[in-house]
Amino acid sequence: MTHESDRPFARVAILGLGVMGGSLARALAALRNRPGVTGWSPIPEERRAALASGAVDAAPAEWQDAVREADLVVLAAPLGVSCELLPRVAAVVGPDTVLSDVASLKAPMARAALAAGLEGRWVGTHPMAGSEASGFRAARADLYRDARVWLVAAPQGAAQVPRVQAFWAELAARPAEIDAEEHDRLMALASHLPQLSSNALASVLMEAGLRPQQLGPGGWDTTRLAGSNADLWKDLLGYASPDLARGLRDLAATADRIADLLERRDIEAIADIMRSTRVWRES
Amino acid sequence: MTHESDRPFARVAILGLGVMGGSLARALAALRNRPGVTGWSPIPEERRAALASGAVDAAPAEWQDAVREADLVVLAAPLGVSCELLPRVAAVVGPDTVLSDVASLKAPMARAALAAGLEGRWVGTHPMAGSEASGFRAARADLYRDARVWLVAAPQGAAQVPRVQAFWAELAARPAEIDAEEHDRLMALASHLPQLSSNALASVLMEAGLRPQQLGPGGWDTTRLAGSNADLWKDLLGYASPDLARGLRDLAATADRIADLLERRDIEAIADIMRSTRVWRES
Repeated sequence: MTHESDRPFARVAILGLGVMGGSLARALAALRNRPGVTGWSPIPEERRAALASGAVDAAPAEWQDAVREADLVVLAAPLGVSCELLPRVAAVVGPDTVLSDVASLKAPMARAALAAGLEGRWVGTHPMAGSEASGFRAARADLYRDARVWLVAAPQGAAQVPRVQAFWAELAARPAEIDAEEHDRLMALASHLPQLSSNALASVLMEAGLRPQQLGPGGWDTTRLAGSNADLWKDLLGYASPDLARGLRDLAATADRIADLLERRDIEAIADIMRSTRVWRES
Repeated sequence: MTHESDRPFARVAILGLGVMGGSLARALAALRNRPGVTGWSPIPEERRAALASGAVDAAPAEWQDAVREADLVVLAAPLGVSCELLPRVAAVVGPDTVLSDVASLKAPMARAALAAGLEGRWVGTHPMAGSEASGFRAARADLYRDARVWLVAAPQGAAQVPRVQAFWAELAARPAEIDAEEHDRLMALASHLPQLSSNALASVLMEAGLRPQQLGPGGWDTTRLAGSNADLWKDLLGYASPDLARGLRDLAATADRIADLLERRDIEAIADIMRSTRVWRES
């Protein structure tokens, strides 16, 4: 058993072999004392590529065959798919198997774990790493090196946290525990709000007839996220934290306030806002 | 006289020896067949530094002594100062001297030129180049290489445009003529609106208690401009085009609209906005 070896988990199953799951498989394969790794993807080419690369020991056609013997199952699918898959995986694996995932929002996963009666053995994660590219060919053994990896467990799952923590620490990632709701609020502010702000700005510039080539370097940076893939975001936005809508309302109110100040020629008040954000940004 | 030589201008005076004026002096000094260049700054150290570097042939203590013999006077001061200085310089120079400036907004300069009766010999410019650093020590001979330089003249000043165009072309810049109002509208959208959007977003994140270190790479880029120097912007914002306030209102309306869609769970409509900005950004 795992507890008798020096490995946090002796047999790992990864469901999903895209950038996130594929990089996890490659990182595990690069360990000196590597665990057994089984991979699965709904796409036959991805399974073949992972097997051919040596990142996984086996890549069966059915996910049930991938998870049956695992001590740890990591769901590396889109958030919606991971929520649906969690109870189905739980029904197939043994009672000691730890279940995890790498989805970018943790409250929906925590709710799915609770609904499936898995609180005691689900430890969700969110590695702060990724790639603009997609698929197993974009997977890299060092994707998680030095990356913050958020760990979320229900109070009943606390006993498994040190094992999952050790699992990520072995890959040179920086695991840290956080509450699910707090995590999702943090993501709403640190990631989702900048994304939608960038889309909102780009949309205004586009409607006004500006071409992106006319942007200066600052405007170019500020609209960079407006080039993100909508289909990857749809999955997340469906589960967005209420803090995201609140942040957008606050952004709207602040933009209106600056417009008011500009029309009143109260430039000193605008400069005060600029000074405070500069202090914040340099803090 | 200038028209008899192969130079657009035989004697150039530059008032202001910061990054913009200092770089212009350095670029002229690097030409094989360099014109005579006189520089002036209100700061004695800047005058000494420019003279010691060989970027200027003379740097008198009074600006009147710098401009008297010039064929071209370039005001390289903040916008407000340039507006005030223009009629005063005109009163000192001869009737054939061409007056120019490098201020980032052109309609206020055009109005100042008109008020001073200078339409026939003012050709304003806006080089799309700069530096986060300031002062003569940040000046570089190649600052304007490949940079777009907008040229603005009153209809009566059109005769001087080819000379000013040749002056910038010699420095390997890319001069192009534009109408003053159109230029300022373009800047409101391409530069000022991204700046204030970034401040608005950073202000919301700051108020929500987020630390900049918690941002992902996308959030980091989107708030980069929030670190800009408020004092440099104050000068510009006092003369901002009405399109800037309008752009901020549109941004506020768009952010509110996305919040509405999010609350209604109309994720497909948000994805449509994201798709359209992605197409725009990649166009």
